[in-house]
Amino acid sequence: MPMFGSLVAGFVGPSKQLLYSFGRGALSLGTAYSPGAFPGHRRLSSACDGMKYLKQDEAVAIDQELFTEYGFSVDQLMELAGLSCAHAVASSFPRGKVLVVAGPGNNGGDGFVCARHLKLFGYTPSILYPKQSSSELMKRLVTQVTKMGISFVNEDSIKQPSNICNDYAMVVDAIFGFSFRPPLRPPFDTIIDAITKSAVPVFSIDIPSGWHVEDGPPADGAAISPSVLISLTAPKLCARHASGIPHYLGGRFVPQALADKYELALPPYPSTDCIVKLPS
Amino acid sequence: MPMFGSLVAGFVGPSKQLLYSFGRGALSLGTAYSPGAFPGHRRLSSACDGMKYLKQDEAVAIDQELFTEYGFSVDQLMELAGLSCAHAVASSFPRGKVLVVAGPGNNGGDGFVCARHLKLFGYTPSILYPKQSSSELMKRLVTQVTKMGISFVNEDSIKQPSNICNDYAMVVDAIFGFSFRPPLRPPFDTIIDAITKSAVPVFSIDIPSGWHVEDGPPADGAAISPSVLISLTAPKLCARHASGIPHYLGGRFVPQALADKYELALPPYPSTDCIVKLPS
Repeated sequence: MPMFGSLVAGFVGPSKQLLYSFGRGALSLGTAYSPGAFPGHRRLSSACDGMKYLKQDEAVAIDQELFTEYGFSVDQLMELAGLSCAHAVASSFPRGKVLVVAGPGNNGGDGFVCARHLKLFGYTPSILYPKQSSSELMKRLVTQVTKMGISFVNEDSIKQPSNICNDYAMVVDAIFGFSFRPPLRPPFDTIIDAITKSAVPVFSIDIPSGWHVEDGPPADGAAISPSVLISLTAPKLCARHASGIPHYLGGRFVPQALADKYELALPPYPSTDCIVKLPS
Repeated sequence: MPMFGSLVAGFVGPSKQLLYSFGRGALSLGTAYSPGAFPGHRRLSSACDGMKYLKQDEAVAIDQELFTEYGFSVDQLMELAGLSCAHAVASSFPRGKVLVVAGPGNNGGDGFVCARHLKLFGYTPSILYPKQSSSELMKRLVTQVTKMGISFVNEDSIKQPSNICNDYAMVVDAIFGFSFRPPLRPPFDTIIDAITKSAVPVFSIDIPSGWHVEDGPPADGAAISPSVLISLTAPKLCARHASGIPHYLGGRFVPQALADKYELALPPYPSTDCIVKLPS
């Protein structure tokens, strides 16, 4: 299999080496930061071989079952998923300015929730939300972040990669999730191209945007090259193409019976943590 | 002001000294347990004097504002509140069998969410839910816990205090919240009386049930005598009558503008934690 880096057109290695790691649990934000070498995208060995990597139809089925059989609302699971994302961000990047790029669907919703919790954790998030959903949930998420003083930025303001690099320490990629099928369409193709060229570290929620949920990054065209990935509920097949970068699992809400039914073999979450770091 | 213990008719000091403490953050459940003297209910000095203790109308107004002005759903905030409660339980009691007593309102809903997360944390919760709400949210919460293998117990099975003591290591009191006005009515009067006489440690969510939100425990009649209290959003006035026991604040979702408007002066949550321990 080809090296990860070569799969992503226009990939530029991160120039801001902001990643830091900690064991788990207690983290003093802004004090535990120990700059180190960016881990790079140099290995493609599969991580967590005992764990199941989901195909698209399995991911859709599990999602549906959580709502129909287990009685969860999107609000509930999105809140836990977005909170997990904020924890994983805080485990990976020191506090600073964050650009959250939100798509119109549930992946974008996870990004809104993540932004809200990041604000409470002391980060300074801004949101780019170019395709606005008419769903009541997404409208409420917009109200929540607006009333919490999180600003929205215009697409034009980030078209130049240098603007992203100058204005933000990191990007949260909440554009597309496991329902996405390539190719990317405007405006996200140009937005992702600018993010990639900016070389700002990117935290991808569930799926690096532009990737096929099973096949991974496209052979050509814009796609996110993440610095950190968080898989929600269970990793999707494409995560095998992201080995070598920090990879978290979040969304600690999966009932054991559901995990058993789909043979997910999820790793145990430590203590009361809402994320678990997977071997990379 | 009179001593706390003397205010609660039928108060019996806990015989199971299961409380343990830890700094914060990383907690290995079931391993960090260090039995110690139960802190007792011996002091009535007000804790956190810089922080505001809410009157009932203020608690109602803040709650309403979160929904109407900030666009939150009950699902969202209840999920975060119940998760906070589960964290505070895990900070206070080792893993074991837990009886969650849920009322028909939002306090009961917090208890259901707490039970669900406790199950994921490795506890063995059972739920007593004698007055069942017809709200869609409460029905979905019932579905969630049922499908996750959490059992419901009958009121009759806990009428004898010895049954509670024999079957459970602790009780989560999720009966009534800040909307409650005394006196207690059946069946909760006899249930609370049995819990109190069982001397099993009790974790109270937001308000110890049977207490007046402002005045505290009643001069006579059944009321919970908590071993641990978690205040949600902000402490209510009655929490001043619970000094001397571990007291947590949870529900890390309060926007700064709302905290400023109501002059809440909340203590900072450490790192990414969803609870903060208040001075007791």
